[in-house]
Amino acid sequence: MTLAASSTLVAEQLADGLGRVERAFEAQLTSSFPAVDELCRHAERYRGKMLRPTLLLLAGIGASEDALVITESHVIAAATVEMIHMATLVHDDVLDEASVRRRGATVNFLRGNETAVILGDYLISNAFHLCSKIGDPSLNVRLGEVTNALCEGELVQLSRRHDLALDRPTYIEIVRRKTAVLVGACCEIGARLSGAPTPVTQACYRIGERLGIAFQIQDDLLDLTGDEETVGKSIGRDLEKGKLTLPTILYLERESAQARVAVLRAIELRDGDALKSLLMKSGAVDSAREFARSLVEEARAELTAIRQPQVRLVFDSLADKVVDRAN
Amino acid sequence: MTLAASSTLVAEQLADGLGRVERAFEAQLTSSFPAVDELCRHAERYRGKMLRPTLLLLAGIGASEDALVITESHVIAAATVEMIHMATLVHDDVLDEASVRRRGATVNFLRGNETAVILGDYLISNAFHLCSKIGDPSLNVRLGEVTNALCEGELVQLSRRHDLALDRPTYIEIVRRKTAVLVGACCEIGARLSGAPTPVTQACYRIGERLGIAFQIQDDLLDLTGDEETVGKSIGRDLEKGKLTLPTILYLERESAQARVAVLRAIELRDGDALKSLLMKSGAVDSAREFARSLVEEARAELTAIRQPQVRLVFDSLADKVVDRAN
Repeated sequence: MTLAASSTLVAEQLADGLGRVERAFEAQLTSSFPAVDELCRHAERYRGKMLRPTLLLLAGIGASEDALVITESHVIAAATVEMIHMATLVHDDVLDEASVRRRGATVNFLRGNETAVILGDYLISNAFHLCSKIGDPSLNVRLGEVTNALCEGELVQLSRRHDLALDRPTYIEIVRRKTAVLVGACCEIGARLSGAPTPVTQACYRIGERLGIAFQIQDDLLDLTGDEETVGKSIGRDLEKGKLTLPTILYLERESAQARVAVLRAIELRDGDALKSLLMKSGAVDSAREFARSLVEEARAELTAIRQPQVRLVFDSLADKVVDRAN
Repeated sequence: MTLAASSTLVAEQLADGLGRVERAFEAQLTSSFPAVDELCRHAERYRGKMLRPTLLLLAGIGASEDALVITESHVIAAATVEMIHMATLVHDDVLDEASVRRRGATVNFLRGNETAVILGDYLISNAFHLCSKIGDPSLNVRLGEVTNALCEGELVQLSRRHDLALDRPTYIEIVRRKTAVLVGACCEIGARLSGAPTPVTQACYRIGERLGIAFQIQDDLLDLTGDEETVGKSIGRDLEKGKLTLPTILYLERESAQARVAVLRAIELRDGDALKSLLMKSGAVDSAREFARSLVEEARAELTAIRQPQVRLVFDSLADKVVDRAN
């Protein structure tokens, strides 16, 4: 069998695994209360790229030494990370006062902030409940570390809103915590559940972490330069909510005092079009994109940790999609 | 040693245990980010009666067959349930738009809803992380069930806001889930961590569940009839937020169509004084209090499950304080 043919097999196996993840997800989120059940079905519509379960399953089959098998533990862990992600989306939409997500109305828009807050809590609670069923306490400890980091990232971001002095290292650290630690943990946990040794699980973590930072930078770029129709969710929220993102930080870092005034004014006036235009013309948007690409290359350089060459191929093509995407 | 003297020893042991719980709580909630740390210190000021850790520790020493020892697992579990409780307080204050809690400003009032939402998430996350350290996956599963029920109770309550047809069984079921399941689990887990057999842990659960429902009914009564100065938190929120509580439900259940009109009008006009006066005069407030007392008696009847008689005494006097309190 050629490498290409066997990587098609991997793709099929992955698709089958993701189907199992969806079923595990739905089975967990079933309530005897119709009002609760309806909310869960609504939240399920937020399911999009399934990036986190995909990475977990791929790392799982890629890091195993022999047969490429997706175990029940992989499926449960993958459904767990997707549920955690979905909880963050529901609460993020409250924070961002967003009305659109995956081309549909958000829970906060339809049912109010109160319901969205508790639905997010319900998703977090179910995620921990589901993960506990694997019966590996160290996995729960790890997951708790990850969600602690995630909340810390959000809290630090909130504390630095409207802070024009936010520098690049702090921005990267916020992004690492709020997004990349979970993505890294997906790769790490997938490998770990396949019995991979520590150097492999650590390399898998680094692959995910790099991809996670790159993914978030691209998300921030889409919020700045995309249109709602294509992106499928409310955009321009970062400017509205006083969140400085990489293009602005790079611009303020390297432009003259005079050039900085124009951008600071656009921020002050919440003028998204002016901000976008200034950041694009100056090359700051391109620089941010290049930085994200360099992180993808860093991740790619670690792909040797993935033992199965055909899975490595799939990872390789997935890596590009982290930054080369319009939604 | 007399029974009274040995129950003084229990009280001392409990006080020592609660000190250890506070230290475990603080050690868990320590962040390297000053902004996060400051929020945690603020949330810690919400710590009040420590009802949940107290019940967990008491059940733990009361259900053990031999020496009355509070183990490290008891301490961690007790800090965990308090952290879960604190997370619900922080999110409840967002839902209720409350500005005062334990005579201090709420997080949402001081820092906005966004920060309060994520701080609540951070507390939930830390609770699960802390509990995982006990290394007993079945405990994590149980805790997940409990927090699922808690969120379901809140979601059902939200879905029934402004619903004047809310009946008593549904109100009790909401209260059971949002408050009593956790209180019951405190007693159950305390006993379980002392190696008590299933019939004992189940009886302990029932004791806590009854006390939990009674506690919430009393909380709802204070929201209706108390004053902010004495209660120490924002009151009148139930009426403001369209939550029907037991006195109103009892009134609407048994009064004439004509008498009902006056209460419905007070609700419609959000006239807290009129509502309070009508419900008090009709005896509905007294009936609700009596119902809470009958639940306390039901709990008391199960106290034989507590093997240590001196602990039973402490439980007994604690039971009364669940309903006989002004804050």
